[in-house]
Amino acid sequence: MIKVDYSYAGEFISDAELEAIRPEVEAARDTLVKGTGEGNDFTGWVDLPEKYDRAEYARIKAAAEKIRSDSEVLLVIGIGGSYLGARAAIEALGGTFDRHVIFCGNNISAKYTQDVIDYIKGRDFSINVISKSGTTTEPAIAFRLFKKLLEDRYGAAEAAKRIYATTDKVRGALKTMADGSGYETFVVPDDVGGRYSVLTAVGLLPIAVAGVDIDALMAGAQAMRRECLEKEYMDNEALKYAALRNILHRKDKSVEILVNYEPCLHFVSEWWKQLYGESEGKDKKGIYPSSVDFTTDLHSLGQFVQDGSRIMFETVLNVVNNGTSIVVGSDEKNLDGLNYLAGKEMDFVNKAAMQGTIQAHTDGKTPNLKVDMDRLDAYNLGELFYMFEFACGVSGYVLGVNPFNQPGVEMYKRNMFKILGKPGY
Amino acid sequence: MIKVDYSYAGEFISDAELEAIRPEVEAARDTLVKGTGEGNDFTGWVDLPEKYDRAEYARIKAAAEKIRSDSEVLLVIGIGGSYLGARAAIEALGGTFDRHVIFCGNNISAKYTQDVIDYIKGRDFSINVISKSGTTTEPAIAFRLFKKLLEDRYGAAEAAKRIYATTDKVRGALKTMADGSGYETFVVPDDVGGRYSVLTAVGLLPIAVAGVDIDALMAGAQAMRRECLEKEYMDNEALKYAALRNILHRKDKSVEILVNYEPCLHFVSEWWKQLYGESEGKDKKGIYPSSVDFTTDLHSLGQFVQDGSRIMFETVLNVVNNGTSIVVGSDEKNLDGLNYLAGKEMDFVNKAAMQGTIQAHTDGKTPNLKVDMDRLDAYNLGELFYMFEFACGVSGYVLGVNPFNQPGVEMYKRNMFKILGKPGY
Repeated sequence: MIKVDYSYAGEFISDAELEAIRPEVEAARDTLVKGTGEGNDFTGWVDLPEKYDRAEYARIKAAAEKIRSDSEVLLVIGIGGSYLGARAAIEALGGTFDRHVIFCGNNISAKYTQDVIDYIKGRDFSINVISKSGTTTEPAIAFRLFKKLLEDRYGAAEAAKRIYATTDKVRGALKTMADGSGYETFVVPDDVGGRYSVLTAVGLLPIAVAGVDIDALMAGAQAMRRECLEKEYMDNEALKYAALRNILHRKDKSVEILVNYEPCLHFVSEWWKQLYGESEGKDKKGIYPSSVDFTTDLHSLGQFVQDGSRIMFETVLNVVNNGTSIVVGSDEKNLDGLNYLAGKEMDFVNKAAMQGTIQAHTDGKTPNLKVDMDRLDAYNLGELFYMFEFACGVSGYVLGVNPFNQPGVEMYKRNMFKILGKPGY
Repeated sequence: MIKVDYSYAGEFISDAELEAIRPEVEAARDTLVKGTGEGNDFTGWVDLPEKYDRAEYARIKAAAEKIRSDSEVLLVIGIGGSYLGARAAIEALGGTFDRHVIFCGNNISAKYTQDVIDYIKGRDFSINVISKSGTTTEPAIAFRLFKKLLEDRYGAAEAAKRIYATTDKVRGALKTMADGSGYETFVVPDDVGGRYSVLTAVGLLPIAVAGVDIDALMAGAQAMRRECLEKEYMDNEALKYAALRNILHRKDKSVEILVNYEPCLHFVSEWWKQLYGESEGKDKKGIYPSSVDFTTDLHSLGQFVQDGSRIMFETVLNVVNNGTSIVVGSDEKNLDGLNYLAGKEMDFVNKAAMQGTIQAHTDGKTPNLKVDMDRLDAYNLGELFYMFEFACGVSGYVLGVNPFNQPGVEMYKRNMFKILGKPGY
């Protein structure tokens, strides 16, 4: 269960303002759902939790089982939307120090790449290369390199059985390569952009390999889809979130900080930053998405949020019921003065830090929204992913941009290709 | 060698503006160096690279050797300035997948803490607990817990030899505990605030345990200190950086994004965010410090930086000479079209991405500064740390704030203690 709570932000957002923006938000929802807006050829993710390819889904689960049985490491090669969703889910639901799924082709650092090469030495591994086209520079470089290492290790025939290509259904360099070499392939749908693709094969295969229950992930997304499509404005968490952030933006809040109190949610924030940054950051518009891990970063950026330039609001991701129980011990000497917490659960302290911080930052004139998720499991994460996606589509239309394109990412590529001497540039 | 390059920002910063702000910057430098400003009891870091305690420094190295010989894992317990500097150096100079130094007490997450408990099972470990007072909530909770685990594992006598306390020289809960139990202690100096403490025992012990050459780190800081104190304005990298960012801030740039092209620099950015955010984010003032890892985040936040709200500038950390060499291979079929890069070094491609991006973002009206560091080694990192610290002190005085206090971090603590029922709140 996901709830968007704005009760702490009452000083900054009135019910009248929420009512005033309602027609815009509902119109934006209609534009999204009816597919009448700009970018409407990229809204396949709206119905995805219901209308996905069951046969492919079964193949994803089978491939994940095979990889888990024959590989200590799955090397996922992808960048942007072909990277962040999987990493978000795996880190949120996996162990902090697990390294069964590692990522590459998400940068061009020789040092990082060498560390990955060293890491897989002596470890059985498979590759999931994820690229719609197969020609994106970072993953293409990495795939050349690690495909060769895999073939050198296992021979070409066995290597081909250890490579899984998630790519276009029919065309493109990677699809051609995969068909020619006999790799199993999965589909990046035509109507789902990278940053909305976590619930396609792009995210699902690596997430399943990490041991996450993808049935529960999809079930959560399904449930949230129904809520998003059916519920009235004030009971609709996605619409509320879209409304609230636009109200705050119009009051000159130019930065939104996504806050968590569980460091394993760090990459959920990174995924969210791509989702909102790339969807809204265009035409000289948009709220700049930033993130912090509290209480860690209360000891670094807390001062600024409390009392620096008043340009931001916070959205706090709150895991209501934490599964892990650690109790603060008692100490006879009590030199650290902590005995007042003896017998208390660590999560009780963490929640007190959250409540105290929301109050302090609100008092300091940084509005705080709160997104409650019932617990940190696959079902709730599926709900959260979908809620943020739906809210993003709506929010982008309210802002007056096309939430599904990203024309600005081509400029640096053109410059780069020219410097590199790529034919045609 | 560190160089601050503003040649790409010529459209946004004129030589006349740099000359105009010069008196303010030089006055701020004098305030800092002469110790005549607010917070002048916390400027001990200015002379630290020369005036440090050589006997303690030798003990740090000896302790690091012992820990490296008897422990597979050093558990560092600290938060904020007692955490970020060490992590920044260790990740910048160590291997991506190394887990010999791990961090705890830097959050209140039961899940994270349980993962650390599981990780150290069956691994020999020691503890470096870092806290000026010994009563900061997060590290105090973690220290209670892991001290007990260590004592259960090794017995009280041997555990005491595996605990290293970095704390106040004479007073406080942790000092009392350490003296009572016979832990070796190192000093958090009175005149060095947390965020300026990386070159004290706070940073140096964990950094040395990770195998980093701390002699080179200190030598780099020494060299940069002399440059900062002696060089004229236009040849002084710290003064230039302080001037440039204040000029841009006065032109309504409210966010500074620190950019790297080596993911191992991620936590250098986190360290920098505390340094600048906590030093300048007060009195409703300050540039909000943010960071990205490129090219990874070009595929998430690149769109926003290129074409979203024009509220930011970027400062690009550029490692001029990379030590690692990986060459792009050739492929007969060339389906991915990468053969134009065959035989080229990966770092050449990475640098082309950087150059192309600086140009594209500049064209998109996001000013770009560049900080060149000659190579990614301990010496250069020592220079970089000191340059950023010195520039931060100067920049804060130019902004008109006390760069050495952090009054805003007390508010949430008071609220939290009240909720927790701490005696006296």
